[in-house]
Amino acid sequence: MSDITRKPVWLDCDPGHDDAFAIILAAYHPSLELIGISTAAGNQTLDRTTQNAYKVAYISGLPNTIPIIRGCEETLCRQVQICPEIHGQTGLDGTDIPDHPEYKTLSDKHDDNFLWNIYKRITDVGRPVTLIATGPLTNVALLLKVFPQISKSLAEVVLLGGCIGLGNMEPGSEFNIMNDPEAAHIVFTSRHVPRLVMVPIELTHTVCATQQISERLRALSSRYASILDHLLLFFGATYKQVFQFDAPPLHDPCAVAYVANRDLFEEQIMHVGIERRSEYCQGRTVCDLYDMHRREKNCVVTLKMKNVEQFWDMMLDAIQLANKNSPIN
Amino acid sequence: MSDITRKPVWLDCDPGHDDAFAIILAAYHPSLELIGISTAAGNQTLDRTTQNAYKVAYISGLPNTIPIIRGCEETLCRQVQICPEIHGQTGLDGTDIPDHPEYKTLSDKHDDNFLWNIYKRITDVGRPVTLIATGPLTNVALLLKVFPQISKSLAEVVLLGGCIGLGNMEPGSEFNIMNDPEAAHIVFTSRHVPRLVMVPIELTHTVCATQQISERLRALSSRYASILDHLLLFFGATYKQVFQFDAPPLHDPCAVAYVANRDLFEEQIMHVGIERRSEYCQGRTVCDLYDMHRREKNCVVTLKMKNVEQFWDMMLDAIQLANKNSPIN
Amino acid sequence: MSDITRKPVWLDCDPGHDDAFAIILAAYHPSLELIGISTAAGNQTLDRTTQNAYKVAYISGLPNTIPIIRGCEETLCRQVQICPEIHGQTGLDGTDIPDHPEYKTLSDKHDDNFLWNIYKRITDVGRPVTLIATGPLTNVALLLKVFPQISKSLAEVVLLGGCIGLGNMEPGSEFNIMNDPEAAHIVFTSRHVPRLVMVPIELTHTVCATQQISERLRALSSRYASILDHLLLFFGATYKQVFQFDAPPLHDPCAVAYVANRDLFEEQIMHVGIERRSEYCQGRTVCDLYDMHRREKNCVVTLKMKNVEQFWDMMLDAIQLANKNSPIN
Amino acid sequence: MSDITRKPVWLDCDPGHDDAFAIILAAYHPSLELIGISTAAGNQTLDRTTQNAYKVAYISGLPNTIPIIRGCEETLCRQVQICPEIHGQTGLDGTDIPDHPEYKTLSDKHDDNFLWNIYKRITDVGRPVTLIATGPLTNVALLLKVFPQISKSLAEVVLLGGCIGLGNMEPGSEFNIMNDPEAAHIVFTSRHVPRLVMVPIELTHTVCATQQISERLRALSSRYASILDHLLLFFGATYKQVFQFDAPPLHDPCAVAYVANRDLFEEQIMHVGIERRSEYCQGRTVCDLYDMHRREKNCVVTLKMKNVEQFWDMMLDAIQLANKNSPIN
Repeated sequence: MSDITRKPVWLDCDPGHDDAFAIILAAYHPSLELIGISTAAGNQTLDRTTQNAYKVAYISGLPNTIPIIRGCEETLCRQVQICPEIHGQTGLDGTDIPDHPEYKTLSDKHDDNFLWNIYKRITDVGRPVTLIATGPLTNVALLLKVFPQISKSLAEVVLLGGCIGLGNMEPGSEFNIMNDPEAAHIVFTSRHVPRLVMVPIELTHTVCATQQISERLRALSSRYASILDHLLLFFGATYKQVFQFDAPPLHDPCAVAYVANRDLFEEQIMHVGIERRSEYCQGRTVCDLYDMHRREKNCVVTLKMKNVEQFWDMMLDAIQLANKNSPIN
Repeated sequence: MSDITRKPVWLDCDPGHDDAFAIILAAYHPSLELIGISTAAGNQTLDRTTQNAYKVAYISGLPNTIPIIRGCEETLCRQVQICPEIHGQTGLDGTDIPDHPEYKTLSDKHDDNFLWNIYKRITDVGRPVTLIATGPLTNVALLLKVFPQISKSLAEVVLLGGCIGLGNMEPGSEFNIMNDPEAAHIVFTSRHVPRLVMVPIELTHTVCATQQISERLRALSSRYASILDHLLLFFGATYKQVFQFDAPPLHDPCAVAYVANRDLFEEQIMHVGIERRSEYCQGRTVCDLYDMHRREKNCVVTLKMKNVEQFWDMMLDAIQLANKNSPIN
Repeated sequence: MSDITRKPVWLDCDPGHDDAFAIILAAYHPSLELIGISTAAGNQTLDRTTQNAYKVAYISGLPNTIPIIRGCEETLCRQVQICPEIHGQTGLDGTDIPDHPEYKTLSDKHDDNFLWNIYKRITDVGRPVTLIATGPLTNVALLLKVFPQISKSLAEVVLLGGCIGLGNMEPGSEFNIMNDPEAAHIVFTSRHVPRLVMVPIELTHTVCATQQISERLRALSSRYASILDHLLLFFGATYKQVFQFDAPPLHDPCAVAYVANRDLFEEQIMHVGIERRSEYCQGRTVCDLYDMHRREKNCVVTLKMKNVEQFWDMMLDAIQLANKNSPIN
Repeated sequence: MSDITRKPVWLDCDPGHDDAFAIILAAYHPSLELIGISTAAGNQTLDRTTQNAYKVAYISGLPNTIPIIRGCEETLCRQVQICPEIHGQTGLDGTDIPDHPEYKTLSDKHDDNFLWNIYKRITDVGRPVTLIATGPLTNVALLLKVFPQISKSLAEVVLLGGCIGLGNMEPGSEFNIMNDPEAAHIVFTSRHVPRLVMVPIELTHTVCATQQISERLRALSSRYASILDHLLLFFGATYKQVFQFDAPPLHDPCAVAYVANRDLFEEQIMHVGIERRSEYCQGRTVCDLYDMHRREKNCVVTLKMKNVEQFWDMMLDAIQLANKNSPIN
């Protein structure tokens, strides 16, 4: 039964280290109600990201009543590009996470009709649901094409991805959008999305998991917290190696945080086009900050997180609740 | 119950004058069993093409057990472009065709889950089904993405569209493919299509409904045959005006004829790429006849109909059966 | 001194077997006056094509008063792509052709200011000159940009290249245009070209050097004629191997023949766009035969050579004159 | 006669308010020797920018021995796009600047062979010349194609233009590069450029002509200084209106300052690709700051001006010298 005081959210993700924290925040933030999770290929293959979603849900004590649905195995028009150089061979490298004990049984039952199962769960809520996407947008795009009537059941779509300036996969392109630019184009141009919010990597690059965050995790002195700590250590090491970051940016929970507390963010509505024909800029989110194109403004772009400290408090609060619930402590 | 001696076919179409003849041929050719019909936007809006499919099914005496399912209203990434200059404001201009008496009741029941309903009907046959597509490929592409397991239930996909040389919508692009190049790209590159056959307009331009065909229709002396005759008259007039053809090419039934009698066709397997990034050639089917690209050969392209007379005999035989069954005579 | 009864022509070429015949026809057709020759990279490197132009001029008895100017070594924006699989390692494989005895002396003197030297020679004629281009269009494009005032001295530009349907370098692209699409775009859109004529490969593929042509050459019983015969033999062998042609199409002299006798050709004016942004169709000449784009008609496209026999007579007449003049017989 | 202690520079520009200051700095900086000026279309039409170059040279007391050469009237492959919304209808709006008294006589003599005249002056110096370009790169690209031997006479090419993040003409494209992306591509990929330096607008946006600069100009109490002050006032007003800048960024002299004193700049070598095929990013300088593409590093990108105050001192020193020389005071 849906709690009327909390915002219902659906999380489409590709865990992934930062996706793990997005799941925790979506499940345990007091003003959110996590309706379900679907998975996309991205940080790793769909098999991996799906198994990882189950693992994170299990160790974080999520009830089986929150469905985890394996999404589309492919992107729309390109080869899936995974990212082992950041997330390792499992997608959650850095520690051993126990498998969800009912993984096989639970995951099998959605397989033959995954899109309908996502659609049905969302529309059954009876109140507008916020769709949060922290991976490539394939599943979201398919939902909008196959079930355009979902429009009436959506509050907004909040996505983690895109960049205003520099990208992280190509000089001008961010990983999630570049993985499926056609899906992104569908989402960014769809008349079935009541409101579209993009949290770009310029913002998330200011939200880094410093040494201090690790210390707050270790202070919890539990197996669960230790797993999260080791995830951050691995993530920090690869970000150091590939991008020379001192501390790893925790992208995905920022999108969840936006839904939980919009006041934390500076934002501006503008036209964002998805580049699909370029030699050098495939999958670029072309953000018309100065309204040079004079095209219809289709996207709210978050420009700044006003208070990063407050975000970490929110995140740690959610982790503490998960820690209490965790079956592995 | 499926007749084991006949090939089961599903027809995805956008009626359309020539689609009407494709429906008749698919329903009445003795070696085919029409399992169902789905509709795409193209020759007219989806509302029009769906209503038209019902009309043609009704006057041609098709049983209500053959489902007609309204497909996706949009293309994947572009604006739908319709073609009133060839097919008129209704999509079947040139005569008044009575509505299907149960149109509303029948069409409503598939609306909330059209893709699953197509998928379910195809897989329920229990034998490999041939998917014939005579409109933009949006529905076929969505099927392949959302239900990749359909692969096991497909014999082949035979599509009417594309060109080797000159196009009919742009200098280098044919109408069906250009309407949804991303969908075409998905179909032409999918590993879930066991065999792909393209019937290009070079072939169909040799299959024109001459005066003689009109006379054979008139010889049937029925209201039904008169409707078909008037459809050809209108189609002929617009083809004369727009393309200076002496007689209109009856594209769509050629794809059905390929499934009914492959021996009628000369064919060659080659690489066909779908152009999606061009300034002048959007939606071009780039047919590598001479294997210059050395890419994987992904499509059987029919190069010639060997005996056009034999096609017309086949088409007229089907019309005669429909004429006997027609409830409006 | 310029002969007022003959049309002055400048030939920009990249010899190449068929270019050799273009040089002979331009030099010896009674109604043409060959003002000069410039060279482009294409069939071989610029060093090779320049040396080849000198060789052909020498053995064909052209006077040193007809300048041969080494043009631009690069294309505008792409890597030069040469074609040894058709023209061999020298660009004129198949026989040994003696070098021009003054090659070094003559070629050096134009090197530091080649474009001005071409421009000066053309404008010095005092009557409008026809510019014939049988290679990539780099030199022509540079002339139009650096000396736009050449417009007043040009009668027309006649180019060999492009295709309406299938290409010979890529499925949709012809060799000359694809080698420098930006140069082609400049030529096709320049307001400084009084009239633009394109002779596409669809036409030249009907002008093949059959066994009968070889016999007419052999009947001349000279060292010169034997060299030409061996050029055709080599060209025929490579065309057989690469394109399965029974006899090799003699592209380049067709453009010269157009200037000599326009009545031999069927032609139609239309919009031709040069594709420069495509995935599969780079360098395609998009010929809008049916005026679908409704863009400005910028090019006369020759669709048919009406009398191929007459062309060969014209070509053989020129060869006979060259044969008489040849210093190597 | 060339002063061996000073760096010879050639300035290709499209004046333009900020180009005026670039001319002054190039002519009067003690370590530079201005060899000549050529003009491009850009900020205004070529007629305007050429007339403006003469005007600025005249009022700034430049000797007629420094040639001003009218360059190419067109871009390579696009329509010239001028910028009256920033520079006004004359290209130097905001004040009346007297014409160069010998404008007609001087400008006519280079017209029929402008490119050779630029080339000749540069190579005649006898020492490597630095080519500074503050407008679209059409002239520079043509020089490299028509006179590749210029390579031996060039020290480096320093250009003002491009962006790392946001553009000023399109969301991702800077004005100079976007005006002629093909020319930019030629320059950025040419093996005839010994060293290429790009000063992007991210840097110049930190070099704004504040109120304080105006006051320093007014302190000179001359007609000449008043003209410069009014140019800055107009420029500031349009930048305020179009881009909401508090003070106008003085782009073009930054490129000259780089040649005069490289130590003022932070720089990094990287691959920069010029986007020419995009839907949204035409003419973008794709700067691979993190070496994601692993392509050859072809361009030194200046990332920061270390001491803006020092730049203004350098600029004001040059203005003071010009002020002393000015024939209009």
